[in-house]
Amino acid sequence: MTSQPLLQFADILAARDRIAPWVTRSPMLRTQGGPILKAENLHPCGAFKIRGAFNWLLSLTEAQRAGGVIAPSSGNHAQAVAYAAHCLGVKALAVMPTSSPEAKRAGVRRWGAEVRIIDPAIDGSAMAWASRHGPELGLTLIHPYDALEIMAGTGTLGLEIVEDAPDLATVYVPVSGGGLISGIATAMKARLPRARVVGVEPELANDVALGFRAGERRALSYQETVRTMADGLRVEQAGLQTWPHILALVDDVVTVTEEEIGAAVAWVAREGRVVAEPSGAVSVAAALRDNEPRRTVAVISGGNVDPALYAELMTKGVVA
Amino acid sequence: MTSQPLLQFADILAARDRIAPWVTRSPMLRTQGGPILKAENLHPCGAFKIRGAFNWLLSLTEAQRAGGVIAPSSGNHAQAVAYAAHCLGVKALAVMPTSSPEAKRAGVRRWGAEVRIIDPAIDGSAMAWASRHGPELGLTLIHPYDALEIMAGTGTLGLEIVEDAPDLATVYVPVSGGGLISGIATAMKARLPRARVVGVEPELANDVALGFRAGERRALSYQETVRTMADGLRVEQAGLQTWPHILALVDDVVTVTEEEIGAAVAWVAREGRVVAEPSGAVSVAAALRDNEPRRTVAVISGGNVDPALYAELMTKGVVA
Repeated sequence: MTSQPLLQFADILAARDRIAPWVTRSPMLRTQGGPILKAENLHPCGAFKIRGAFNWLLSLTEAQRAGGVIAPSSGNHAQAVAYAAHCLGVKALAVMPTSSPEAKRAGVRRWGAEVRIIDPAIDGSAMAWASRHGPELGLTLIHPYDALEIMAGTGTLGLEIVEDAPDLATVYVPVSGGGLISGIATAMKARLPRARVVGVEPELANDVALGFRAGERRALSYQETVRTMADGLRVEQAGLQTWPHILALVDDVVTVTEEEIGAAVAWVAREGRVVAEPSGAVSVAAALRDNEPRRTVAVISGGNVDPALYAELMTKGVVA
Repeated sequence: MTSQPLLQFADILAARDRIAPWVTRSPMLRTQGGPILKAENLHPCGAFKIRGAFNWLLSLTEAQRAGGVIAPSSGNHAQAVAYAAHCLGVKALAVMPTSSPEAKRAGVRRWGAEVRIIDPAIDGSAMAWASRHGPELGLTLIHPYDALEIMAGTGTLGLEIVEDAPDLATVYVPVSGGGLISGIATAMKARLPRARVVGVEPELANDVALGFRAGERRALSYQETVRTMADGLRVEQAGLQTWPHILALVDDVVTVTEEEIGAAVAWVAREGRVVAEPSGAVSVAAALRDNEPRRTVAVISGGNVDPALYAELMTKGVVA
């Protein structure tokens, strides 16, 4: 494997200009006694993913645009690619695992994208399926995290945080494949190097936390990661391209329990009055332990949650 | 009764300058196939009420500031006054009915305000209690809606709508005592007179809709209005000062059923990813019937809802 170049700060500035007509700044919500919430759930499609999707689709060659794109995803990336493809007039196919929530599948179909549901136990991961079948279908693979185009897009989020909270001490970021935190960390370390960037994973999908401690990438099986309710964070390991960014730029990676995730979803509804999905609230769960909440930002990465699960978390704070 | 002067557009501009250091612009959220949501639930305290509260408390004389304030309210006004009083160093007493949600009472106490719970069946309304006891306690009554100071504050919301959606055809506004819609309508008719301003009430608390048809103010009993789940809209009639604004400036007043309110709360969670309380979602319920949703703004006036009720609405869309 050849070593890839790291994302440059200039790439993020270029991405910001590129996506500006399509992606508006998300609000930073102050809470009492808790972290500041960077509300990425308030974007169209309800997740930060539109940043990377637009940046990539706007960078395609004419031939790639004409051929269409394929997006493997547990849900939010597929929705974002479908939305961006719809806006830009590009054909899209989403590849989603059987475990993906129905709300997220419906969110893809509404933008006119095709959806292919695959069973990871039979077909391998959605990523494997898309890599195998994308080329024969003439579709360009839009990786959900392991690409400079995605990281440059998520870096624009880091720029906004620095501009809106220049006094911040720590930013907590949900970690799955690492695309979100790699972009944010690149922007933060360029613009506000003294602020800490902390990744957050569910205890039940702690591959990056384990790898960060060991100094080398670790993987978990789908059978392991599927146990967390944070369906967006079930990716089995960080990407080959995101991993060096995590090692070089992230200050720490911590884990939270399912109980803490459920309580954070309910806390965000009560104190921030926004809807966070479990994957999007792991950052809040970690930030609620921070002893300097006023100088803490928690990135709520998404807000697409099945109503039944959401209702359960509202009343119990945790699913049995 | 002497006729009071109407709110002037200049009063709104003055209020905007006065409250600007304390109240930030709320976002306008685009949804697919539904109205644009003016998310007033994302303010501190979770409601538009901080606009009027800050405007009034910043307009008090030195003697009034020293004496403190009294705020009768089902909840959101009390929270906003408590918050503004806390920020500005003024003593506050909130008077709340037994039917007020515990979440809203806790929201008042957290800002250091005193709370007095009264039983409307015994003591009369919270307003009557505050009018009777405020003066003897040396407290200035901060009326929840029937005052130019409040309407000028809510007018700033109308200014923001016009600036952020200059193409809009209709704005839907929850109606209780009329302070919110009076301010918004004054701003809208000054800046964008061709846009329609439509008030929305629960069918079970339709005093303003009835009065609007009849051309004169109508009242309902507390026993009637308490039946709606929209606890913020149980005010028994419009104010003496707000009423002439409603008659002069509002284009229509419509009603929605409890089923529609519950469905709107769930819709807002799914499509807007924000938490609306039932009172704050009546506007959305009405807007969802509009045949030109892209040019429609629904004001979500607040997001403070008891978790158990919220959970029920998430799964059923309606409470039996």
